[in-house]
Amino acid sequence: MLALTINCGSSSVKYSLFSQDENGELNMLARGLVSELGKENSAIKYVTDKNTITAALDRPGYREALEAAITTLVHPQFGKLKDIGEINVVGHRAVHGGDKFTGSVLIDDEVIGKMEQCIDLAPIHNPANLEGIRQARSLLPHTPQVAVFDTAFHQSIPMHARVYALPYEYYEQYGIRKFGFHGTSCNYASQQVCHLAGRALAESRIIICHLGNGVSVTAVDRGQSVDTSLGYTSVGGVMMGTRCGDLDPGVLLAIMKEFNLSVKEADNLLHHQSGLLGVSGVSNDMQTITQLALEGNPRCRLAVEMFAYYLTKYIGAYAAVMGGIDMLVFTGGIGENSAWVRSLAVNKLEFLGIKIDAQRNLADLAEDAIISPDDSPVLVAVIKANEEKMIARESVTILEALRVPAGFSGVAC
Amino acid sequence: MLALTINCGSSSVKYSLFSQDENGELNMLARGLVSELGKENSAIKYVTDKNTITAALDRPGYREALEAAITTLVHPQFGKLKDIGEINVVGHRAVHGGDKFTGSVLIDDEVIGKMEQCIDLAPIHNPANLEGIRQARSLLPHTPQVAVFDTAFHQSIPMHARVYALPYEYYEQYGIRKFGFHGTSCNYASQQVCHLAGRALAESRIIICHLGNGVSVTAVDRGQSVDTSLGYTSVGGVMMGTRCGDLDPGVLLAIMKEFNLSVKEADNLLHHQSGLLGVSGVSNDMQTITQLALEGNPRCRLAVEMFAYYLTKYIGAYAAVMGGIDMLVFTGGIGENSAWVRSLAVNKLEFLGIKIDAQRNLADLAEDAIISPDDSPVLVAVIKANEEKMIARESVTILEALRVPAGFSGVAC
Repeated sequence: MLALTINCGSSSVKYSLFSQDENGELNMLARGLVSELGKENSAIKYVTDKNTITAALDRPGYREALEAAITTLVHPQFGKLKDIGEINVVGHRAVHGGDKFTGSVLIDDEVIGKMEQCIDLAPIHNPANLEGIRQARSLLPHTPQVAVFDTAFHQSIPMHARVYALPYEYYEQYGIRKFGFHGTSCNYASQQVCHLAGRALAESRIIICHLGNGVSVTAVDRGQSVDTSLGYTSVGGVMMGTRCGDLDPGVLLAIMKEFNLSVKEADNLLHHQSGLLGVSGVSNDMQTITQLALEGNPRCRLAVEMFAYYLTKYIGAYAAVMGGIDMLVFTGGIGENSAWVRSLAVNKLEFLGIKIDAQRNLADLAEDAIISPDDSPVLVAVIKANEEKMIARESVTILEALRVPAGFSGVAC
Repeated sequence: MLALTINCGSSSVKYSLFSQDENGELNMLARGLVSELGKENSAIKYVTDKNTITAALDRPGYREALEAAITTLVHPQFGKLKDIGEINVVGHRAVHGGDKFTGSVLIDDEVIGKMEQCIDLAPIHNPANLEGIRQARSLLPHTPQVAVFDTAFHQSIPMHARVYALPYEYYEQYGIRKFGFHGTSCNYASQQVCHLAGRALAESRIIICHLGNGVSVTAVDRGQSVDTSLGYTSVGGVMMGTRCGDLDPGVLLAIMKEFNLSVKEADNLLHHQSGLLGVSGVSNDMQTITQLALEGNPRCRLAVEMFAYYLTKYIGAYAAVMGGIDMLVFTGGIGENSAWVRSLAVNKLEFLGIKIDAQRNLADLAEDAIISPDDSPVLVAVIKANEEKMIARESVTILEALRVPAGFSGVAC
């Protein structure tokens, strides 16, 4: 079984080829990236276990990018396939499925129609995803294609956590509600930490701290997302590189009034000038800020402490929501690389059973790793973010469900 | 020792007379309210242990209201004083002391000057407080007067919880930061629960849920406020009767854009049309909503569940911030009267050591009461809100500090 994953962003196309072994495990054979879509300095970079090759591309669109990707995969010397038809299923990353998709789906015209209705919810990402899907269907017309939605995992969030305390018609008529993001990453991390720990997902209360460019904390109660820090937009929750995170909404209005900001200017302020960048005044990059903080820069230190403080609060809040916590996961760039942030975030949480082993935390973590001591009531782990693998897994699962003989479908045994 | 407390709001004046007994305990002798200030239907209501008397007033200003109050207190039949000069100290409620006041202060011209600089921070309440102070000083020129600030208790909140993740100049240059409210109530409730439980404030981690018309949750770590849910304005944190509480700030901008709302209209939406009223669609009153929820109204049920869910999250978050919790306090109208909200809020928190006894919770609580079972690791209590007593206590403390002979001041022994 071979699965190709495609992640079409606004200015890039990422792709990965996975092969399923006899144990059902998916192994990456190759991956690639087409960057600077539509520009003269566009390029494709293709990586296998043995080789890395790059080539310039001249202002490619999504179709040309995917054609280039296919060329790499079937390349006589570096390719992993003889023919692109060997691929059994294509899995597409889809950012926002609104309330129309509660899980991954086989793509057909009806699905595309529904996805088109969700464009406004992610006006930058969704059109890119859709265009990638259209071109991939055209290039691989005989290969089943699956859409894996970033929002689907959070569709299980119950009403009391989903609805905002605004006039109810904003929810009912206009669909303004908590959607959440990073669902595919959370889904992967929660499965992976159970695999690592040898525990059952269905019996575990897990908090996932996805700390990347975007940041979210998610409560996964026995396999179901029950709350997550990002909501209708991607600016709330924990502070991020340049995004403010949770904010007294009266502050936003006070600033707009005092400085006569338009909605667009305010949006720019919250999205691009706040977060780590706004507090530190120097950078949105945690590594840079950490270095400066250690050299004695007080605002960089404050930015790191604030970031960790948000995490501490969310971990406490979500443990409360689930009535306890069994496992805590750090994933994403900051989650995987900042021992200081991990340490600060859980510093006061031993009363919740959360402990980390200083040596394990400080070790160079090349692989997924448990960083709590063996006697810690709560298992704390660092899991390498791997949305591609989750997309491949979901795609294979959907494909296998299709292959079940008709007589067997829906039979409980 | 006799202390008079005065609380001048935008349309009313409340006053209370306290007497200090030989144990230092303050007992209320009388209290009164002048309502509908400046209007034709204004009235004064005066209550003692024996009598309640009311009288109509004709469009009183703050001076006339205070004159009427003094008249009641020295009334030959109903009064508790022969002469108003018997009062040893007057304590004024002051809503917003900005970053200028970290505690209660004896009022002089310099203090009034500083308070004038804080007017913009609470443009409705602060001018009323100031006018009350000016008139009271004029009417009782020989009586020491003390200002007790609602924000002072929260001045101990550390930087990482005080600063918003916005560009730092908003904090540094424009003073936009977490101030918090209900500080006098929190101060009282934390002292009172320690008194009730026979525990030391300096050794206790307490979470105070002040659930009234305004709602806040505060973490009091060994006597110091270390975080609180209300911030720069009074609209964030836990959802309230008509206020939205915490909200993805991107939602506010999305609504303003979609519905072309001005800042003023958005402010009105968040302050007056949201919260319990917005979700339920019928009322901002918890008692009404609870009744309707029990009769099967799904949106009223949702509103109550959401309200309690906010509390659960804040209790979890603030326990995390303090590294644990020793006592949990409910105070304010909803906190004192809604057994359902209390029960829902702590429903999943037994893992934190928080238990409530169903019978104690459902009892008619005429007095401060412990509602946790005797074996509960965390003591849970309902404390009657009593800002007046706290203001009197603070005023007496300030007065006594003044009376210490000069030679003794500052001597540690």
